[in-house]
Amino acid sequence: MSITLFDAFRVATSFEKWALIVVLVVAVLGLLYAAFLTRQVLREPKGTDKMQKISNAIRTGGNAYLKRQFKTIFLVLVALAILVFFSGWLGNIKSEYDNPTWLIGLGRAFGFVMGAGFSALVGYLGMNMAMAANVRVSQASRTSFTKALQIGYRAGTITGMLTDGLGLLGGTIIFLLFFKDSPLILLGFGFGGTLLALFMRVGGGIYTKAADVGADLVGKVEKGIPEDDPRNAAVIADQVGDNVGDCAGMAADIFESYEVTIVSAMILGLLISKVTGDLYWIIFPLLVRAAGVFSSIISTYSVKANREGESAMKAIHRGYILAACISILSFLLFAWLYCHDLRFFWATSVGVILAVAIQFLTDYYTAPEKGPVQEIAKATKTGPATTILSGIASGYESSVMSVIVIALSILASAIIWQGTPGEYQLLYIFYGIALCGIGQLTLTGNNIAMDSFGPIVDNANGIGEMCGLEAKSRQTLADLDAVGNTTKAVTKGIAIASAVLAAVALFASFYEEYHLPKIDLIQWKVFVAFLIGGAIPMLFSSMAIRAVGRAAYEIVNEVRWQFNNIKGLWEGTAEPDYSKVVAISTSAAQKELLTPALMAIISPIVIGLLLGLEALAGFLAGVILVGQLLAVFMSNAGGAWDNGKKVIEDGLYGGKGSESHKAGVVGDTVGDPMKDTAGPALNPLIKVINLVAVIFASVLALPDITRETFRERDLNAVSVIIAVVGILVIAVAFWYSRKQSAYGREESTEEQAPAKK
Amino acid sequence: MSITLFDAFRVATSFEKWALIVVLVVAVLGLLYAAFLTRQVLREPKGTDKMQKISNAIRTGGNAYLKRQFKTIFLVLVALAILVFFSGWLGNIKSEYDNPTWLIGLGRAFGFVMGAGFSALVGYLGMNMAMAANVRVSQASRTSFTKALQIGYRAGTITGMLTDGLGLLGGTIIFLLFFKDSPLILLGFGFGGTLLALFMRVGGGIYTKAADVGADLVGKVEKGIPEDDPRNAAVIADQVGDNVGDCAGMAADIFESYEVTIVSAMILGLLISKVTGDLYWIIFPLLVRAAGVFSSIISTYSVKANREGESAMKAIHRGYILAACISILSFLLFAWLYCHDLRFFWATSVGVILAVAIQFLTDYYTAPEKGPVQEIAKATKTGPATTILSGIASGYESSVMSVIVIALSILASAIIWQGTPGEYQLLYIFYGIALCGIGQLTLTGNNIAMDSFGPIVDNANGIGEMCGLEAKSRQTLADLDAVGNTTKAVTKGIAIASAVLAAVALFASFYEEYHLPKIDLIQWKVFVAFLIGGAIPMLFSSMAIRAVGRAAYEIVNEVRWQFNNIKGLWEGTAEPDYSKVVAISTSAAQKELLTPALMAIISPIVIGLLLGLEALAGFLAGVILVGQLLAVFMSNAGGAWDNGKKVIEDGLYGGKGSESHKAGVVGDTVGDPMKDTAGPALNPLIKVINLVAVIFASVLALPDITRETFRERDLNAVSVIIAVVGILVIAVAFWYSRKQSAYGREESTEEQAPAKK
Repeated sequence: MSITLFDAFRVATSFEKWALIVVLVVAVLGLLYAAFLTRQVLREPKGTDKMQKISNAIRTGGNAYLKRQFKTIFLVLVALAILVFFSGWLGNIKSEYDNPTWLIGLGRAFGFVMGAGFSALVGYLGMNMAMAANVRVSQASRTSFTKALQIGYRAGTITGMLTDGLGLLGGTIIFLLFFKDSPLILLGFGFGGTLLALFMRVGGGIYTKAADVGADLVGKVEKGIPEDDPRNAAVIADQVGDNVGDCAGMAADIFESYEVTIVSAMILGLLISKVTGDLYWIIFPLLVRAAGVFSSIISTYSVKANREGESAMKAIHRGYILAACISILSFLLFAWLYCHDLRFFWATSVGVILAVAIQFLTDYYTAPEKGPVQEIAKATKTGPATTILSGIASGYESSVMSVIVIALSILASAIIWQGTPGEYQLLYIFYGIALCGIGQLTLTGNNIAMDSFGPIVDNANGIGEMCGLEAKSRQTLADLDAVGNTTKAVTKGIAIASAVLAAVALFASFYEEYHLPKIDLIQWKVFVAFLIGGAIPMLFSSMAIRAVGRAAYEIVNEVRWQFNNIKGLWEGTAEPDYSKVVAISTSAAQKELLTPALMAIISPIVIGLLLGLEALAGFLAGVILVGQLLAVFMSNAGGAWDNGKKVIEDGLYGGKGSESHKAGVVGDTVGDPMKDTAGPALNPLIKVINLVAVIFASVLALPDITRETFRERDLNAVSVIIAVVGILVIAVAFWYSRKQSAYGREESTEEQAPAKK
Repeated sequence: MSITLFDAFRVATSFEKWALIVVLVVAVLGLLYAAFLTRQVLREPKGTDKMQKISNAIRTGGNAYLKRQFKTIFLVLVALAILVFFSGWLGNIKSEYDNPTWLIGLGRAFGFVMGAGFSALVGYLGMNMAMAANVRVSQASRTSFTKALQIGYRAGTITGMLTDGLGLLGGTIIFLLFFKDSPLILLGFGFGGTLLALFMRVGGGIYTKAADVGADLVGKVEKGIPEDDPRNAAVIADQVGDNVGDCAGMAADIFESYEVTIVSAMILGLLISKVTGDLYWIIFPLLVRAAGVFSSIISTYSVKANREGESAMKAIHRGYILAACISILSFLLFAWLYCHDLRFFWATSVGVILAVAIQFLTDYYTAPEKGPVQEIAKATKTGPATTILSGIASGYESSVMSVIVIALSILASAIIWQGTPGEYQLLYIFYGIALCGIGQLTLTGNNIAMDSFGPIVDNANGIGEMCGLEAKSRQTLADLDAVGNTTKAVTKGIAIASAVLAAVALFASFYEEYHLPKIDLIQWKVFVAFLIGGAIPMLFSSMAIRAVGRAAYEIVNEVRWQFNNIKGLWEGTAEPDYSKVVAISTSAAQKELLTPALMAIISPIVIGLLLGLEALAGFLAGVILVGQLLAVFMSNAGGAWDNGKKVIEDGLYGGKGSESHKAGVVGDTVGDPMKDTAGPALNPLIKVINLVAVIFASVLALPDITRETFRERDLNAVSVIIAVVGILVIAVAFWYSRKQSAYGREESTEEQAPAKK
């Protein structure tokens, strides 16, 4: 029994050795750049005492939430890390170097912990950066538009760089350490990141929307006070929500997308390199990603509005185009000079084209000036019902267009890579699809910078409102806020498109890993599993929407109670107890998180145990298809409703306070949990389910693989028992979460405060 | 060249000969029973002159619509009949008797025309019966609850008996005529019925909801006048809509489900009988269906409320249970004494259990007293947004439960039929699934009777309102109307569940027909087609929802114009021009019908030509999965919103006129096009796409099959050209229909009447 590590360096050419070192250096450079930006941002002035006080309250709430969140999932993570460690013994994991199973198990568990840790770190640091930046953006807006834009964007860039740097670093380290064994370890790395992202997305999404909806229902609807009115006990929770949902949740989610695309490309690349003997199949994606990090550093630093008043979007776009040009050039150079194979260039370029196409589609279906949003705005003239119908119709349509674009990019990848038929044709095609995902997420640094920008400016705007800043400064913040809304929607679209590509690549590695002869839909087991797989994202969405409803109701009750019982609150002489609402949101989000997460982890195992591996693959296909369709539908419909309302607030069809505006607000509220909780959470959901299938399928495969050595009947009995226990766990969790109906659970109305506290 | 017909009688045992004759006799008996009931219903008094006048207006509108509808689709049908005729030459159709290709083509075209004709006939007669019965129910309600119930239910039963009788007759005749060649002909029969049902469902659905929404938007929302107020020019169109949508559309749709399940069972049965030599594989489904017809006759005739005031639902339920008992007994007897194989009994019983389970689920998710509707009603307290979210969440959940039940019934069928592995194992399993569909729709007669009952009583209620009938009579009608709402939702649920089973069986016959070795999802072509297939039902739903919006807008403009320009209308001294609105609805529905229908027919052909047969199968799987999920979601969410509003109108949370009620009305309006246009039309859509695939796949298979005799390149070029033309046709139709945005297309507002007329 010998242990072989760091074997990659033995095989690599000297160019490749240097290339790997450069990749590592660039990854570290990205992290250093993040540190550099952090210092820059923190140096900016923090504004008045009142602004700092509010900012501190938000920061306290955000960190309290994350602490609670990490505590809740810590046990789940430990349990899973142990399972991941043991997955080496149960299944058909085999080291290429005859390394001992415990080493592989340990490596995989280490990868899992690293993935989860990196994901958590990106979320934690990203959120804290955003919470430090918001007040500074508010302050800067009082003097300079350029300065405010720069601080917001740079704070967002920090999260982007952390994502890039840590994702690249993790993948490269695992590759260097384990080389031919690294697919086994990379799966753990991907699983850890994805799982954490699922928790952060669902928890953060429930938190942010429950606080938002709760604050609006009492404030705007019942009491008729404006948004962000300091008498509303839920306003701080609402601000905190923007951070835990749109910053922490989003950052963990995009990190996960970035990480899983690289994991799947490396796994497939390694499988090919076993056949061809060339290392560039793995090193190319790493190099391309490094080039992406490099171009993000240059381009994000270049973003500043050249003169006061230049459109913020223009400056950001300029940075994006610069980054895209550098990246595409690097694809060409690496493909031509290093791989001597232009297919690498074409495949990654298809990814970039896909990113651009998705961006175009998202923009068309959610931007205020385009047809669909204008149509929604017009529909508000005939009331909320037509508003909703118009949004559903255009949301469905956007989802269809997006799935067709994704299908075409898979088609393009397949045409580029299909070559001549043969044993390895499929492997090449899937590698091509994975490269497409690599290309699509090359500019993650820029995308996150654009996206994080949204909640930072939103918060800055809220702080401005609560502190009553000057009109000019408020206008600056409102302009920046509008830009943030569009960039947010675009990033969500790209993340979801990447989910399908990454899931297809994982699906392929699943297929290759277990040497399935086929995934034959005509087999009834496969078809049955396929139907059930399609149901999962719908059930998940239903749970997420209900969870927001339930949590919002708890908040509504609390805010009502405070209005009724705190003397002088309405008159403005007393302060509400903000922290109480923050605490309620925090615990509600944690409580609601577990059922959907359990379902994601347990359902593939149940299907695999009961119906076998081929059926499990059918299950995954159903999850991917319906997950993609629902995610885009909910995100884009929600974004369009949001902007439909904004268009009216800007003066169309009677402006604020008109009947049209009321209908627009209904659309926006319906869209809220769809676009910020259920929709984006489907992205990590799809991948968690795929990764659980790949990692634990080794266990599921037992009855087939070891049929000759074990007694078949015993194994089947064990399978059935585990599966039944799994179904029971899901059912009980589901029953428990449904026990109290989502709306109006407590009979308290505006007049009757609940008898608590 | 010899022609062989009526070969079945040569092979059949004498018992089987008698059985076939009995089946024919029972089918005719069903039709005679319909005729008998028609005479009975028509004998009832028609009420006052005013009632008759309204009833005549509805009848004129309904028939004008159907005339126009049949005219529009006549050309499409003729063109398709010719294509169907030629499908024999182009593909791999081969007569078992060496009958000439023209005979098979002719037979198939004859089957197609018969299917379309029967479907149209059921729709036409069913609607006319309903329109004759509504006024008679109104009149009867003035004296007797029992009488009113009986007339309504018997009129509904007529449609049920027509469906049963014609479906059984068509299938049996084709079998007797062509015997071993009958699968080829049955496909044409199925295609004709399904295609017509698609047209009737979509056209009727758009008509009914456009008129409903249009009438409400001007009447209830703008003018504040009650529903069915005679001053509203759209009220007659609204009443007509109930008939063309819920009677004609529904009847054609259920006929199609009934027909396609029998077609798929007979095709698979014939394939097995080729292997085993036994005829009972085909005759069993026919016998079972005949028993179903027989038990429907007995049980529907027995439905009467035993004493005044007994719940109507109870009487109907008693009839249903009686029919179920007779049917299950017949399954057992035939399986045991004739087939000597109890699997037949189990398989059809699984179908009955499935029907009961779906009924239970639909009831749970849409009945006023159950949790989900109560939850929606509670959610109205916090406004329309929470009302919508609550409905979406419970609609999603209901869809998940329903797909799981369907998956379990496929699982059960497979377990019953899998036997020992071998060449024909799959065939048996699919036959089992088809039998499950047979069992599930055994009680179609009763289901349709229950379902048609809905719109008849709805109309009777409307006539009652417009003529100001006595309070007691109005109460009777309102009670009956509420029953109608539940039965309608249940029938929709059963039709959709049968769609999946029938589609799976068609999918299987497609697979068997073309001897595909597998449908392997890991092949990129299959996966790409699968993704696109999933998008189709979503695009179709988006189109249908938008179409209703556009058509409703035309109606709104017309009604506004009449209010502004007809002197004395508001004061009640002049009458509105009802017929103008009827004409607008009619032409709008026709215009909107074509794009989705074209997409359904062309899309499978395009996919088959470009990506091949295996990919086409993947495409079908995507269509089935997403079609099922969306159909149940939209139907049940819509039904729940409708009843949520009703619960409030009955006095909960403030009753009519309260804020809760307004929110409930928003939910109901959102649900309208979902539950009555898009949702139910997905049922025929799924099957049209499947049947186009099966029938024209013979053409698509050309490039593969004749590769050795034709020049491959030429054929591929032809394929690509046809496919591109197909895509262009869909794109142009789509562009044309989208050219004018759905809402607010014309800038006319309440104040500015359009400058037309």
